[in-house]
Amino acid sequence: MKTANGINLTMLCDFYELTMGNGYFLSDRKDRISYFDVFFRRVPDAGGFAIAAGLEQIVSYIQNLHFDPEDIAYLRSRGIFDERFLSYLENFRFSGDIWAVPEGTPIFPGEPVITVRAPAIEAQLLETYMLLEFNHQSLIATKASRICRAAEGRTVLEFGSRRAQGIAGAVTGARAAFIGGCAGTACTVSDQIYGVPAAGTMAHSWVQMFDSEYEAFVHYCRTYPENAVLLVDTYDSLRSGVPNAIRAFDEILKPLGIKKCGIRFDSGDMAYLTKKARKMLDDAGWTECRITVSNSLDEHLIRDLIRQGARIDSFGVGERLITSKSEPVFGGVYKLCAVEDGDGKRIPKIKISENIEKITNPDFKKLYRFYDRETGKAEADYICLREETVADDQPLTICDPMARWKRKTMENYRAVELQVPVFRGGKLVYQLPTLNEIKAYCAKQIETLWPEVLRFENPHQYYVDLSDRLMALKDEMLHSAGKHSRR
Amino acid sequence: MKTANGINLTMLCDFYELTMGNGYFLSDRKDRISYFDVFFRRVPDAGGFAIAAGLEQIVSYIQNLHFDPEDIAYLRSRGIFDERFLSYLENFRFSGDIWAVPEGTPIFPGEPVITVRAPAIEAQLLETYMLLEFNHQSLIATKASRICRAAEGRTVLEFGSRRAQGIAGAVTGARAAFIGGCAGTACTVSDQIYGVPAAGTMAHSWVQMFDSEYEAFVHYCRTYPENAVLLVDTYDSLRSGVPNAIRAFDEILKPLGIKKCGIRFDSGDMAYLTKKARKMLDDAGWTECRITVSNSLDEHLIRDLIRQGARIDSFGVGERLITSKSEPVFGGVYKLCAVEDGDGKRIPKIKISENIEKITNPDFKKLYRFYDRETGKAEADYICLREETVADDQPLTICDPMARWKRKTMENYRAVELQVPVFRGGKLVYQLPTLNEIKAYCAKQIETLWPEVLRFENPHQYYVDLSDRLMALKDEMLHSAGKHSRR
Repeated sequence: MKTANGINLTMLCDFYELTMGNGYFLSDRKDRISYFDVFFRRVPDAGGFAIAAGLEQIVSYIQNLHFDPEDIAYLRSRGIFDERFLSYLENFRFSGDIWAVPEGTPIFPGEPVITVRAPAIEAQLLETYMLLEFNHQSLIATKASRICRAAEGRTVLEFGSRRAQGIAGAVTGARAAFIGGCAGTACTVSDQIYGVPAAGTMAHSWVQMFDSEYEAFVHYCRTYPENAVLLVDTYDSLRSGVPNAIRAFDEILKPLGIKKCGIRFDSGDMAYLTKKARKMLDDAGWTECRITVSNSLDEHLIRDLIRQGARIDSFGVGERLITSKSEPVFGGVYKLCAVEDGDGKRIPKIKISENIEKITNPDFKKLYRFYDRETGKAEADYICLREETVADDQPLTICDPMARWKRKTMENYRAVELQVPVFRGGKLVYQLPTLNEIKAYCAKQIETLWPEVLRFENPHQYYVDLSDRLMALKDEMLHSAGKHSRR
Repeated sequence: MKTANGINLTMLCDFYELTMGNGYFLSDRKDRISYFDVFFRRVPDAGGFAIAAGLEQIVSYIQNLHFDPEDIAYLRSRGIFDERFLSYLENFRFSGDIWAVPEGTPIFPGEPVITVRAPAIEAQLLETYMLLEFNHQSLIATKASRICRAAEGRTVLEFGSRRAQGIAGAVTGARAAFIGGCAGTACTVSDQIYGVPAAGTMAHSWVQMFDSEYEAFVHYCRTYPENAVLLVDTYDSLRSGVPNAIRAFDEILKPLGIKKCGIRFDSGDMAYLTKKARKMLDDAGWTECRITVSNSLDEHLIRDLIRQGARIDSFGVGERLITSKSEPVFGGVYKLCAVEDGDGKRIPKIKISENIEKITNPDFKKLYRFYDRETGKAEADYICLREETVADDQPLTICDPMARWKRKTMENYRAVELQVPVFRGGKLVYQLPTLNEIKAYCAKQIETLWPEVLRFENPHQYYVDLSDRLMALKDEMLHSAGKHSRR
């Protein structure tokens, strides 16, 4: 009887990483230095940007890369791996370099978010888990950002563990939701291990466990006078729930001088109920009582509730956040962009596709973000060859690679390189920020985006431009490939 | 730096399970015997049934329920839990009873799939993880069943790890997909720990790592002559990929007398490409070469490819299976249905809702499936009070609880109780079947369903009826609640 909890993550790889690894080993290509980029092609929910997340878990994974004797035994049992390869795996560890965009950074399609430079087998092996973690956490952070922006400063809590897709779906999902803007989670262990504040008070079963709703509320207020958030929709929200909550507050909290308390609705017409409840609470003197709602919420419903004047202080968001229900897949990919020959000379690689958007950017690259020095706003991102350097005291003309007649000259701008070195020769060289730092950085970075990029409906497509040298290299490789194929 | 891998799953609970637990403890209700049902309300993708999955992991979780000293320390640090409650948690273990429908069973809305009888704190604590695991694995098993039925006997492989929602999303996801009908997975560790056969050969990077596609294919065939599945779409599938594959097969496999091999397409027009490739392979004498396709497939695309006469032997299905993309949430809930008073007398509980479908079935229940003895087909399910027994040598008249005028008399039927005892007094009393047994059982159970229940479009709504006694109890409780509330 086993669970996915506590496995050796090195074995969480697509089987083909191992068949290729064995093949590279046997064809003397295992030490061939390779460059891979992680990037994505489309923002979920047709949004204007995504939020990068998952790097901390990727770092931990890479530091722990190894094969246990039982892993080797399992691979041997498959009967297709060479014994020399299995011996090699016994001492396997990561010896390469990794650069990555910090967690919490807004990212755009086509950008190298993570770049790996390592011997072929090593670089190949990372593919599955690295993509899994990046895709999952970026998906949830991006969705959380949308939901929190819809709430316009009101508290959003992540409540979705029970509907998450597996253990990490809940646990790292809550972490990613926090990065994207949620104030906390219902998931206890995410607080314990990541420090995502966990909150929660009662379910309907608490109310049903007592002989009456009033008795249930009184017991709760006695036990948690400082944090009495009462669930008022078990029987009849406005006729029974809210009046009983007010009675319990009056009886238990008032004599203690406590004014802070709360009620929660988990069903019904949230706009109607919260307006009525607000009036009942205010009339009874409980003006500091906060109203929380939960029940299949998402960014669109939250916006609509606010537009209707619902009196809501806090949203509990479950399944539609923790699974990113409207679009549950983040399509990050891992593509070879260069290899080194025997003399250490880099040979760029490109993946050609019938589909123009699927053609990769070749070679080892750098990613810049250009901020206007006057407004502080992000104006464009810029991908160039690793050897190129942008001097932001000089004007720079950039152009849209998909529409090359669209040119723009940057002046009075600040150029910031987005990727930071994470591993160098297999050694961690990056000081991981705390989760609170990541969350704060994310919020600050989102502030640098123009409102046109932030909006949900038809957001402005942020500029991600290629340097002239990179564009020339790409063109040359495409033309050269075109010579060998006919239409 | 932490990951969700290797956590104490007891702490994977909503925080309110603990605040309620502390509250039950302090209000002397911790030992009050409670009955909870896990059930769901709606089949994903508007299908005719779902597949129950996840029980093995739930069993393992329950056997390992405990709080470590660091868990107690964390809870203490929250400052709201009574020291007596924390002492109680130090020796916490599950002491109750659990009944459940075996994994792989087709299940229908409203049915008690898992029933828990335990002291209030214990029963409450299980809620989050039990729902998470049941919801996740049932979701994926149900989706896999749809996709495999669409493939009409062709092989379906689960290829989605990199797009899964977290570690278990991939790992237990592959397990659930296997139960639902997939032949295997790309996820190595799911083979290692669950025995889901892992398969996979090469990525585009393998082809790019060599100086030519032909060279890459030759190296692969030399390394894996028994399992040479070549990815043919890196450059130009029909002009380069398939001809190079045939050349490599001719050069390496033919002299060895090997006839079994394969090619895979990961992009392009699958109907067109596979028909052309089939002809090219057959003309070259490679009639036993199997054709695999992958690229954002789901049950609808697979059906459409088959309808178009595509020549496909095997489908690799990724993100749309591993996240159940079209509907990524399985809405299982956990509801109180009874408590025992001090004398051990059961008091039924009901959750009333404005929404008729959301009203729960009260009390401790039993679930039967009625099979026609002549056809072997499942005709209806039947929920009754635990004390009731169906004698299937007697005719039984059943009626639809939502349309009580629809009555049917069962004759010549076999009544099978679907829930089996899993825990008794905290002790495992269930012999867990192997994963292959679960998969075979699932396939056999699906065969007992009428084609009208199996179809994708407007499936027949299978009958789930309540016994007269259960219906009378429910009516009585609803009327009695109605007296206390006004419209």
